[in-house]
Amino acid sequence: MISLVRPIRFEEVDAAGIVFFGRFLGYAHEAMELFFAGVEGGYPHLVMKRRVGFPAVHVETDYHAPLRYGDVLTIETTAGKIGRTSCTLVYRFLRQDGAHAATVRHTCVLCDLDTMTKIPIPPDVRAILEAHRSSG
Amino acid sequence: MISLVRPIRFEEVDAAGIVFFGRFLGYAHEAMELFFAGVEGGYPHLVMKRRVGFPAVHVETDYHAPLRYGDVLTIETTAGKIGRTSCTLVYRFLRQDGAHAATVRHTCVLCDLDTMTKIPIPPDVRAILEAHRSSG
Amino acid sequence: MISLVRPIRFEEVDAAGIVFFGRFLGYAHEAMELFFAGVEGGYPHLVMKRRVGFPAVHVETDYHAPLRYGDVLTIETTAGKIGRTSCTLVYRFLRQDGAHAATVRHTCVLCDLDTMTKIPIPPDVRAILEAHRSSG
Amino acid sequence: MISLVRPIRFEEVDAAGIVFFGRFLGYAHEAMELFFAGVEGGYPHLVMKRRVGFPAVHVETDYHAPLRYGDVLTIETTAGKIGRTSCTLVYRFLRQDGAHAATVRHTCVLCDLDTMTKIPIPPDVRAILEAHRSSG
Repeated sequence: MISLVRPIRFEEVDAAGIVFFGRFLGYAHEAMELFFAGVEGGYPHLVMKRRVGFPAVHVETDYHAPLRYGDVLTIETTAGKIGRTSCTLVYRFLRQDGAHAATVRHTCVLCDLDTMTKIPIPPDVRAILEAHRSSG
Repeated sequence: MISLVRPIRFEEVDAAGIVFFGRFLGYAHEAMELFFAGVEGGYPHLVMKRRVGFPAVHVETDYHAPLRYGDVLTIETTAGKIGRTSCTLVYRFLRQDGAHAATVRHTCVLCDLDTMTKIPIPPDVRAILEAHRSSG
Repeated sequence: MISLVRPIRFEEVDAAGIVFFGRFLGYAHEAMELFFAGVEGGYPHLVMKRRVGFPAVHVETDYHAPLRYGDVLTIETTAGKIGRTSCTLVYRFLRQDGAHAATVRHTCVLCDLDTMTKIPIPPDVRAILEAHRSSG
Repeated sequence: MISLVRPIRFEEVDAAGIVFFGRFLGYAHEAMELFFAGVEGGYPHLVMKRRVGFPAVHVETDYHAPLRYGDVLTIETTAGKIGRTSCTLVYRFLRQDGAHAATVRHTCVLCDLDTMTKIPIPPDVRAILEAHRSSG
């Protein structure tokens, strides 16, 4: 499990005064960038130089408790299912008071960004996934 | 079915050159605001004055084809399940070449934004949902 | 002058309940995309295929009146100074009640996006600028 | 001077492959939240509980060098002019290679968010401004 702690920012709430439901996927991606920080050259290098992409194919979010400006979020990231060319990342969102705010399940397919065709999960990416498999 | 047509904008792509996966929920909300435009006083009035909110409880997205800058998106919105205090909106995302880019299923609970407690679906909101039930 | 009318969206306000000050530049870019819609092949084609970019070099915004969810914005775009390789676009933001919400002055330099070097303003871009010079 | 270090994120670039010009104001606000972190109760408390707001009245940005995905930004924040009810924050944006990417000058007026009327700068806010005056 890799944990990211980040405060909710001023412009991340909506007109109802709570964090906009679409923002949770931006937070998830932030956590994903940290999760894969240990790949060779780092995650931006993976995308920009090695041209490996992770387009989402299916994302499911359960929202349990609202987040507001002033809250501090902890995102715990683990790997769920790991296939040959695809994987599922699971992000648990916890509020500073311990409330379970949301869970995002994010299935992506590894691809070559120049050709947009599927590729097998590269070994260094796979090693990180294997090291952080969710227990459940 | 209510349709929204909107071009992909310059800043909506990510470093992989395709629309960021989290943006689809922002697009869905845009389509939702249009879907409910016919409520008494309009959708912003519903939120700001009548203090009726639609916090998401579960959202599922299937991504089928990427979107890029220059693409024009059509979002077809229908109502799926309609309960006493909750409803599911279904958004089909079509690219200008007819490709089915994504489907979002968005379940929300109606609430009083001041107390954040569940309320029954107001009659004018329900009427719009009933009028645009998905056939499938 | 080219006018864009667009409602303020649900997620565009901040924790103070008014439109976040940085959003005005996103609105300005939306207006810019419409302003240049008449170039050969359209604006996205200009960027993606002709590889012409408009990186900003200086932007100034005066904020006069706040915008809230439910407001409808009209953005009036004109060209200010037009040079050999640079130009200034002026965006006047008007609220539905006639209040002058803001003015953005946006100076950009034309460049080749592959080499990131300055280029002279292409003739079709210049023609649009000349056709919509601000009077003042 | 208060410094914030933050990597450019995946979804912060635009279709030209560089950080969208409007994002710089979001980065500036992030730096501002850190700058004022030392006020009584913290910055979110200042906004949400004490109902003190800082609406922008004038913002000027000079853009010198582009930022891309993979870059790491350092933002150095100082106070420029400090008035009775208004102040100017100056943000210098530095890229990891030392390049000066941009400078934002952000003038805001202190206000009561419930009445949207000007108020004198509160003493704890003023103390932070005075402690971090720019030399130039």
